[in-house]
Order: sequence, then C-alpha cells, then structure tokens
Amino acid sequence: MGGSVPPSVSVFGAAGFTGALTARLLHRHPVFELRTLTARSDQGRRLDDLYPHHRVPIELEELDLDRHADVDAAVVAYPHGAAAPLVAELRARDVRVVDLSADFRLRDPAVYGRWYREHLAPERLVEAVYGLPERYREQIRGADLVANPGCYPTATLLALAPLAREGVIADVIVDAKSGVSGAGRTPSEKTHFVSADENLNAYGVPRHRHIPEIEQELAALGAEVPITFVPHLVPLDQGELVSCYVTPAGGADIDLGELYAEAYAGEPFVELAEGPPGVRDVRETNICRISVHRDERTGRVIVFAAIDNLWKGAASQAVQNLNLMFGLREEEGIGIGASRQPEAIR
Amino acid sequence: MGGSVPPSVSVFGAAGFTGALTARLLHRHPVFELRTLTARSDQGRRLDDLYPHHRVPIELEELDLDRHADVDAAVVAYPHGAAAPLVAELRARDVRVVDLSADFRLRDPAVYGRWYREHLAPERLVEAVYGLPERYREQIRGADLVANPGCYPTATLLALAPLAREGVIADVIVDAKSGVSGAGRTPSEKTHFVSADENLNAYGVPRHRHIPEIEQELAALGAEVPITFVPHLVPLDQGELVSCYVTPAGGADIDLGELYAEAYAGEPFVELAEGPPGVRDVRETNICRISVHRDERTGRVIVFAAIDNLWKGAASQAVQNLNLMFGLREEEGIGIGASRQPEAIR
Amino acid sequence: MGGSVPPSVSVFGAAGFTGALTARLLHRHPVFELRTLTARSDQGRRLDDLYPHHRVPIELEELDLDRHADVDAAVVAYPHGAAAPLVAELRARDVRVVDLSADFRLRDPAVYGRWYREHLAPERLVEAVYGLPERYREQIRGADLVANPGCYPTATLLALAPLAREGVIADVIVDAKSGVSGAGRTPSEKTHFVSADENLNAYGVPRHRHIPEIEQELAALGAEVPITFVPHLVPLDQGELVSCYVTPAGGADIDLGELYAEAYAGEPFVELAEGPPGVRDVRETNICRISVHRDERTGRVIVFAAIDNLWKGAASQAVQNLNLMFGLREEEGIGIGASRQPEAIR
Amino acid sequence: MGGSVPPSVSVFGAAGFTGALTARLLHRHPVFELRTLTARSDQGRRLDDLYPHHRVPIELEELDLDRHADVDAAVVAYPHGAAAPLVAELRARDVRVVDLSADFRLRDPAVYGRWYREHLAPERLVEAVYGLPERYREQIRGADLVANPGCYPTATLLALAPLAREGVIADVIVDAKSGVSGAGRTPSEKTHFVSADENLNAYGVPRHRHIPEIEQELAALGAEVPITFVPHLVPLDQGELVSCYVTPAGGADIDLGELYAEAYAGEPFVELAEGPPGVRDVRETNICRISVHRDERTGRVIVFAAIDNLWKGAASQAVQNLNLMFGLREEEGIGIGASRQPEAIR
Repeated sequence: MGGSVPPSVSVFGAAGFTGALTARLLHRHPVFELRTLTARSDQGRRLDDLYPHHRVPIELEELDLDRHADVDAAVVAYPHGAAAPLVAELRARDVRVVDLSADFRLRDPAVYGRWYREHLAPERLVEAVYGLPERYREQIRGADLVANPGCYPTATLLALAPLAREGVIADVIVDAKSGVSGAGRTPSEKTHFVSADENLNAYGVPRHRHIPEIEQELAALGAEVPITFVPHLVPLDQGELVSCYVTPAGGADIDLGELYAEAYAGEPFVELAEGPPGVRDVRETNICRISVHRDERTGRVIVFAAIDNLWKGAASQAVQNLNLMFGLREEEGIGIGASRQPEAIR
Repeated sequence: MGGSVPPSVSVFGAAGFTGALTARLLHRHPVFELRTLTARSDQGRRLDDLYPHHRVPIELEELDLDRHADVDAAVVAYPHGAAAPLVAELRARDVRVVDLSADFRLRDPAVYGRWYREHLAPERLVEAVYGLPERYREQIRGADLVANPGCYPTATLLALAPLAREGVIADVIVDAKSGVSGAGRTPSEKTHFVSADENLNAYGVPRHRHIPEIEQELAALGAEVPITFVPHLVPLDQGELVSCYVTPAGGADIDLGELYAEAYAGEPFVELAEGPPGVRDVRETNICRISVHRDERTGRVIVFAAIDNLWKGAASQAVQNLNLMFGLREEEGIGIGASRQPEAIR
Repeated sequence: MGGSVPPSVSVFGAAGFTGALTARLLHRHPVFELRTLTARSDQGRRLDDLYPHHRVPIELEELDLDRHADVDAAVVAYPHGAAAPLVAELRARDVRVVDLSADFRLRDPAVYGRWYREHLAPERLVEAVYGLPERYREQIRGADLVANPGCYPTATLLALAPLAREGVIADVIVDAKSGVSGAGRTPSEKTHFVSADENLNAYGVPRHRHIPEIEQELAALGAEVPITFVPHLVPLDQGELVSCYVTPAGGADIDLGELYAEAYAGEPFVELAEGPPGVRDVRETNICRISVHRDERTGRVIVFAAIDNLWKGAASQAVQNLNLMFGLREEEGIGIGASRQPEAIR
Repeated sequence: MGGSVPPSVSVFGAAGFTGALTARLLHRHPVFELRTLTARSDQGRRLDDLYPHHRVPIELEELDLDRHADVDAAVVAYPHGAAAPLVAELRARDVRVVDLSADFRLRDPAVYGRWYREHLAPERLVEAVYGLPERYREQIRGADLVANPGCYPTATLLALAPLAREGVIADVIVDAKSGVSGAGRTPSEKTHFVSADENLNAYGVPRHRHIPEIEQELAALGAEVPITFVPHLVPLDQGELVSCYVTPAGGADIDLGELYAEAYAGEPFVELAEGPPGVRDVRETNICRISVHRDERTGRVIVFAAIDNLWKGAASQAVQNLNLMFGLREEEGIGIGASRQPEAIR
C-alpha cells in the first residue's frame, strides 16, 4: 500500500457466514477497496443472491491465486485446517493476512495437533499475532499475519483479562451460550430450525476446541489455570454470552468496578454495564458488553460478557485488525462504537 | 384382524417428521399394536435416539416386505412418487394402508402427472378414498386404501366446505402460512435456523402442488373454481394457518355463524371460534379451529382455519383414519378433542 | 436553519419503539443535530438505559414546549389522537414537523373521525403532505408538515402503485403479516413472549385502521377500489410482508417486470427481486423489496413487498422525509441502500 | 375421600400459567374430579377463553371459601406471600393442599423472612412436606400439605442428589437457563416479545430466591455447601436447563454412570441420557432428563438436567404429588413417562 492508493483486499471463503459478513463490511469500508471474493461452494453466484441483506453485488469465484492474491491484504475464512496452506501461499506472495480460522491462534503446533490435526504450515506461526486488539494492539499494527480469535475466546478473554492480569484467578468455569449462526452455514440436523427452535442444550462436552486458545491467552496474562468451558446452543440467530464464575485467589478487597473501568478506559469497543448484558444489546456491533459482580455469600466473582459472534466474534473484529494493520482509525467501517456509560459499575 | 386380537400396524418411513409422529401415536394407542418401523435413512438407530421427545424405543429397520408387511395395517410416510410402488405392494398383500403422500389423492392420474410425475400405480387409484374424515367418514370406514390429505388442503377444505356445499363461492384466494416442520426433516438452506428465524416469505409461487388437490375436492363439493393459493414460511415449528378470502356468489343473507355451526355440529375435531384462531391454540392436537367473518365494506367472506401441520395435517389425521377403518372410536389415541364453544359465532 | 449551521431537531415521544429508533438515526446523522428527547413515560431515564443497542446517551425529558420547540424540526412519535394537538403547537411556532401518527395522513377529517376519533387540529390538514417519498418526493421537499405513512400502507402502496397508476386494478386483497414490534412497546397479553412465540394469527378483522389510508392513496393513483386488508401477527421482532392479490382489469398483455422496473428506476430504497422477498432481506434497512408474479391459471397478479416496519415503516422513512425537507441527500444517515439487481424480473 | 367417590379438587389461582396448566391436567385426570377454579384476575372469563389450547370449559370465579373449600384437595397457585394465608385457611378446613408457592418450602421461617418476607402462617410449616417425589415419596403419601418445589430447585436437586448423597460435593456452581414462561403471565418489559426474542441474559444476580431452597435440600442430603446459582432468560416458551459444575471432594474413582443409574432405577419420570439433554426432549412432559460427565482435564463433574418448567417444574409435579397423596398410581393423568434408555451412560 503506497501513498493515497486505497489498500486492496480479497476475501477468501466468502460463502460462509463470517466471510460473507466480512465482505459486506469491506464493500462499504471508507478506505479499503474490496477486490474479489472466492468461495469453495456457490461459485458463480453473486453474494447478494446468497445473502440479499448484505447487498454485495460481487460474484463468488473459484480460487485462482494468481489473480486473487494480487492484493495488499486478504481475509481468509476457511475451515480450520484448510486455512493454513492458503495463508502460507498468501504470505509467500507478501499479502498481509487476517485469518479467521484457528490455524494460527495456538503458538505451539503440538497443542494445535492435539486439539485439531497436524499443522500444515507451522513455519508461519512465528509471525502470527493473536488478533485481540484490546490485548495486542501494538503488535497487530505491525503484523503481517493476524490470527483472528474465536468467538468464545474473544468474549471470555475480554471478560477475564482484568482479573487475570491482577493475578486473582484461582479457578474459573465458563458457561457459554451461542446463537445458531455460530454453527456455520452448512445445513445439518443440529442447525435445522425444528431442532434448534424452542430448544437449548450443551454440546462439545467436556472438550471444546476453544479451550486451549483461552488457556494460552489467560496464561500469557498471568492466570495459568485449567478452565472448565461448556458451550450451549440457544435458539437465536446472532449473539453470544459467556458467564464466567471465578474463584478468586485473594483479592477480596479489590474494587471490581474500578478495576474494569481502568482496564477498559478508552477502549472504543468495550462497554461496561451495571446489570447483566443481553446479547440483543450488542447485535450487529463490534461491541463487547461486560458486567462484573461479587457474590458475597460465596466470595465468588461473576463476570458476564456479550458479543455478536459473527461481528466482534469474527468479521468486524477482522476489519478492526485490518484497520490497525494499515494504520487506519480502529473504528473505520465497523459502525456504532461503545456508549460511554456514566454510571460507575459496582 | 380377528376377534379381540389387536390390529397390528407398521409405519414405513418413520425417520421423517410425520412418520415418526405417527409411530409415537400408534406406540401409545390403546388398541393398535405398533409392530415395526422402517426407514430409508438412519437404519439401525432407535427412534427415541432421533426424536427423544417421542419416546418410542423401537429400532428403524431397512425395508423387508416379507417381514414388515405381515401386519393388518400400514402407514406409509414416503415422499411423493416413492410411495405409490410400496403402497401397491402392500395392497397386493392385503394390508390396509393409510398413505401420507400425494400419490393417491388425485383421482385423475393425468392431473397427477402434470403436477408431480408419471403415476407408478394408477391401477390402485380406484380403491383410494380421500382421507378427510369430516367429509368422507363413511367411505373411510370401509376403505382399504386411504390417501391422507395434505396439510394445506386439510385446513383449506375444512375452512371452505360449508360455503362450497352452499354453492356461494364465486372466487377464492387462499393465503397460507406454515411452520418450518412442513418443509420436512432434510436439512437445507431454507430450513437452516439462520434462514428461517426472524424471516417470513412466500414460496412456491404461483404453482404449489397442493392446488389440484384443493380444487378437486372443492369441485366435488360443488365449487368448481380455480383457486389462487400462496403458501408462506413463518418462523415457528409446528402450525399452519390458512386465510381464505371468498368472493361470494350471492349468499349475502346467509347467517355464516349458523352455517358453520350446523356444518360442524358433533365433529370431534373441528372447533369454531369467534375471533381469529392462532396456531398455538391447536398445537399438538388433531383439532382444526375455524373462524368466519363477513367484511361488510367489500361483501367478502373471510375464513381462517388453524391446524398443527404435523398432527391434523398428517400424523394424527392418519390415526383418525385408521381408527375409522378398524371400527374404533374416532378419537382413540389422538388426545384432546375440540372444546365445545358456547359462544355462537357471528 | 441558516447557512452552514446544522438544522436542529427534537424527537417528541422517544420512549416508544419508533421514536427511539428515530432518535438513534438522528443522533448519528451527519447533518442534523439531535437536540432533545421528550417522553410521556420513563422521564429522567437515559435512552441508552431503555434501549442499550441504540446507544443514544440522552435523557428523556418531560415535555416543555418553550425549551423543546426551539428547534428547526421535530419528529412527533405520539399515539394517534395525541399527536394532533402537539403538532399544531409546533407548527404554530414554525417548527417543521414529521408526524409518525395517523393524525395527518387522511385528507378528510370526516374519514379520520369514522376510523379514529374527532380530529383535534383539522385546520392543519391542509398543509400536510403524505410522506411517501417514492410518491410525493417534490411536495415533501417544500413541506412544513409531513404525515409519515403507516407501516402497512408503506409496503402496500409501494407494492401496488405501478399497477394502480396503470389503471389495471379491478380488485385487490392484501394479506399482511407483521412482527411483534408493530404492536408497540406497551406490554400486553398479546405482546407477551408466551402469547406471540410459536403463534400466528390474524387480528383487526375485518376493519383495520390502515384501510382508509391505503384506499385514499390508491384512489389518488387512479385505483378507486375498496380493499380487503387483513393483518396477521407473526413471531418475529421486526419485519413486515404484504401479499397483494390483484384481479386485473385488462392488462393481460402488460410486461409486469418492465412495468415495475420503470416505475422504480433510480429509486434508492426500492429493490426488485425475482423471487418472493423475505423480511430478513430488509431487516434494519430503509429498503422495500418487491416481487411481482402473474398466476397464469387464474390471470391474477400477485405482488409481495417486504419492509422493516420500524425502519421504512416508520423511523428511517421519517429521516428520509427530513432529508428531503431540508434539501439533503435522501440517503443521508439511513444506511444501506437498495442493491441494484441485474436480473431482469419476470 | 371415601370409597369409590372420586376425590374432588379445586385450583386456586387458575389464571396464571401454572394454575391454568394444573387445571388442564386435573380436568382430564382419570380419577380426580376438578370442581372449581378461582382467580384473582379475569374472574367471569372461562379458562378456555384465556388459554384455548388447554380446553378447560370452566369459569374462573372470585374466591368464596365456603363454596370453594368444600373439596378433598386444593392446588394453590398464588404468588409467594399471598399463598400462606389461603393455605392456612384451607388446612383449617381439613382440605389437603399442594402449594405451588415458596411459602412452605423453607423449613426455617427466619430463612424465609430473609429471602422473601415475614411468614404469614409459620404454624403450618411443621406439617409441610417438600414435594419432590423422587426424594420424599413416602412422606408425600401421608402428607396433608405439600410444598411443591420451585422449577430451578427441581432440576438442580435431581441433577445433584446422587452426588450429594455420596458426599462428594465440595463446591457447586449452577448456571440455569429458563424459557420466558418462567417469568409468569403478567406482561412486563422483560416478557415483551421484543425484549426476549433474539436475546439472552442473566438476571437475579447474585441473589436469586431459589438459592436457600436448593441449599436446604442439598444439606439434608449431606452436602452442606453454599452454592453459586445464576439464572438466565432464554428466548423460548417452556423449558429449563441447569448446568451444574461440581468440584468433587474425592470420588475420582466413582463410576458416575452407575451411580446415577442406581439412584434413578425405576423412577418413572427421570431419564438418563448419554449426551447433554435438550429442553425440547422434555417439553410438555413430567420428565427430568439428566446427563453426567467427568471433565478429565480439571477433575470436575458436570451434570445437566432438563425439565419443562411449567410441567415437572410446577403443574405436573403438583399432580404427581396429588396422585401420591391420594394413593393413586404416580403416573396417573400426567402423560408420557420416561423412556427406558438401554444404553449405559458413561
């Protein structure tokens, strides 16, 4: 990217929910120029035919790296495992990449191997930055490869970071709830309306793949604890809530409200609320809305964080990362930012 | 079936929504003995694994006519076109059949051919009775082959029969709305939770396959009119509402409330309401709830009918037909009947 | 409003669904300066406390005309009947008004009296312009009082205008379906989640208050026909679909696709689709998405139009009108416009 | 109740969700004779007008103890606090009572006072039996006053009882999720469709009133631990899921599957599942469906229990208790019982 030429960007894997939303945000972005969309299915269809509400009149093309990689930046929205080789190719051509898959989130390829499969491009791990701007803003600015966090880790880490940094987490249980869009676009028994509607259940018990990602980042913050993490499917479209139950190691005298207010002062996309946040409060935004509570009876600290799993949990966070990588205003093209809450939280 | 031996019955195609519900009703039926379940998918799985809430601890088997046809009665829940050959085989073995498909609903195989495909067992059409008990109760009692009506025709015909019989229908538009279970169990883009949730749209415009079935039966009642019929998909699980707009041919002096009250006096599963019925009012019942209104400004007659598409629109009506065929009490094993509404309808 | 000073605007009645959304759109509007919000309930609460997702950090105040009317423009979101006196007061102070109620939509106060109540400010009717920009764009530009259309009339008129203007409507039935937000914010038996969820029913049969508004505007277009209009409540939040069944008076040779394409060429917020539109396609937009079909069997023309009842059906259309009144770009501050559909519609 | 005369029963407070459902179950009960319904609102309306789907053609009457208390048994469905005086009056007249409120669940009136208000009939506490049949079956048989458990305690206690009895619970966190019917029939901002739909949030943090009830019963089973209990509202009608995170005190060698299988052997309404239960699996049944899992990474035991909050969480459990009190078969009139799951759970 040079001078005043707008940086060009392609989305690889734009037929899925997160790729398509990324395409929508970039298509209307005031700076980036969305160049091409590729897809592994529905090639030849236009994106506004698949997703009329995104209104992106661009055709989905079969991957042709010579054409599609001739851009300044790429967002890769491929399934876990399939992303790594494409990312490696794009990096070899000097394209700066935000990868939505899990392939570059775990620093240790052995851990990746235990939870996913053998890593197909471990040599690129060294340049990957974990794309949680509220945590790694400076590193992201200079990065050529950003591993966009998972939706559950995004909410969980934003909920727990202030406590982790303070060193007061002795133990933590995360009961997570997600809308059905989190299960992806492929139709299945589980995503059939008749299965999900008026239903509610846990899944992925007791080993969900987001666990190592959360533990890695909590440890980096100072909280080296194994977590219990259980996701649930709830009958709504977009939205995710994590309810975090922290057994504190000391810290009974910490002013939780102050701790969180300081931790997130000035953050454009973190919002502190007095009462428990609802997922409706953050629908179609890049905002994470958090409340923190102390249960005096048990001494436990309870933290809730709500995000839109497709936005802050994936697509709009990817654009937030792109904005940082290309020196733009972080909020550019992502819509409404956090409301300043004047009420001090308890 | 002889003496006091309970009649035995098999359900063919029990993995789909309507076959599975039929199995549930028959499994708990006070008279019938549910013998076997076959399925074209999920063979070897137990039905209460696929549908825990039906609580039918019976395995789905691959079709083996020699074993499965050794019963007094069969319910066939196969797709349109696939049902006809199986029904013919079952009838050749003297099994009495209720067929949930469209294959034996249309008396004229040429009409069937135009809307579906070439008929594969036209020689059996002559013995088929259209299984709407409120219309053909006596014929069903003696029938060996009952063509269970489609869900839309069931609601529409019950809504319009009193007017059709009276000869006052000059023209009729049916705007129909159905929950997503009507689209069947196969996962697809359309039945994905994320597509159907918070959505609402028409489909099958302007030629829906239920049209010839409705027109055939309206004509038999005396109303030989081409109908406009447009179905819509609404974000709910089970339930169907038809809104019928009738331009009357004369009849301005008919007391509509009286006409309907007389038409359905004593009917165990038709319920007349003063205000527009909701699909929630009939969920998981065999009841059709109807209201009729005259729009004085336009002279038009408006009739609403609500059913549960899986119950009165398919499975419980199949059991109602079986009850009639085997000389049982019509309500046997189908649950709650209509509430007697003391209010005279207008 | 003078020179480069941004025009100031107040929203009166900002605690309800449509007033609150109008406040959100104006709070982020690139030109207007949102000055104050008044409310008849919840005074003293901040709007982002009632509606966190709107993120408008402004307090709701008790009405004080001396303070609140000192603006260039006002949006009035009061109930029918209560709006008229406030609008009259605002106009007396030379404030330009967009009124979301029905009070200034009907040109004839006698008709208003029959469907609502005695009109409380009939002297202001003469200056009112019906705020459907696709129909009265030029008049709105110069207007001081714009009567924002009802949600059902907006969708219905956009669906039918091309046919009405062509003079080919002999008769029309409108089967309308709306999400629950259309019933307003006041909690009631009907809007209780447990009543509306998994339910579906008609209401307001056979005399819904939107009828005279639709008939007035159809007549003005040349189609002087009494309409049958029946609204239904569907279990979704925001969204409205009208299914219009037109018996044509001649016109069998009209190319419907061409007629609609010409009628809406260049319209920034009307979108033509080949297949039936879904309400999800227009959620949180100012867009009306339309498809038109001919039923060859019956000769009938079927038109579907989908809008978001809170947006194009109320708040964003109010801002569209304000934009026109103040000489701004029509799309200013309303978000995504219609996607140009390259496919010719049939 | 004498000889073969069916025991008569009245429901007090039948206009609410749980009272109305109890009325429906008793109206169709094969043994009990439902005599009268009283209500604090909607007096004079028939129950099938308020709740068409219950089909109970009985009028709601204003309380008149002389008439209404002339029965063998009563179900009281009054709000907490309001129930106690009525229950005391009924008991003074020797009517056997099942009380759906919290008023007789807590053995210690001082605890009741801390979480609710001053107890208005503490003298009756001594004869109250906690109505969880799986726990107190024998005491219920002889009881004259049964305190029907809360919905959350029912699910939580059934989930945890086998572990509590085994003495292996060191600590427990209960993350509970309930459908909107749990909030009762009174329309409010929280139960408005537009608030609850596509939303999800915790409430009652950190002190929910069901906590003392759960702690009392866990202690009675041997687990004297303070619990962390956080309820969430999910966008569905009926259904409740508790996710229990148990830090075990020893017990690493316990075969959890065997423990639960033995604990619930022969229980007609407890169902053990291999995978996490969904609330859809138990909708409109008296069944509690449970799964238990060990998280090898953290040593924690995770138990899920799903019920229908209006059925097993209130009305059908009340009938189960009445059946026991009057020496009837426990399953009488409550519908489908648990499916025997042949698969050993892990």
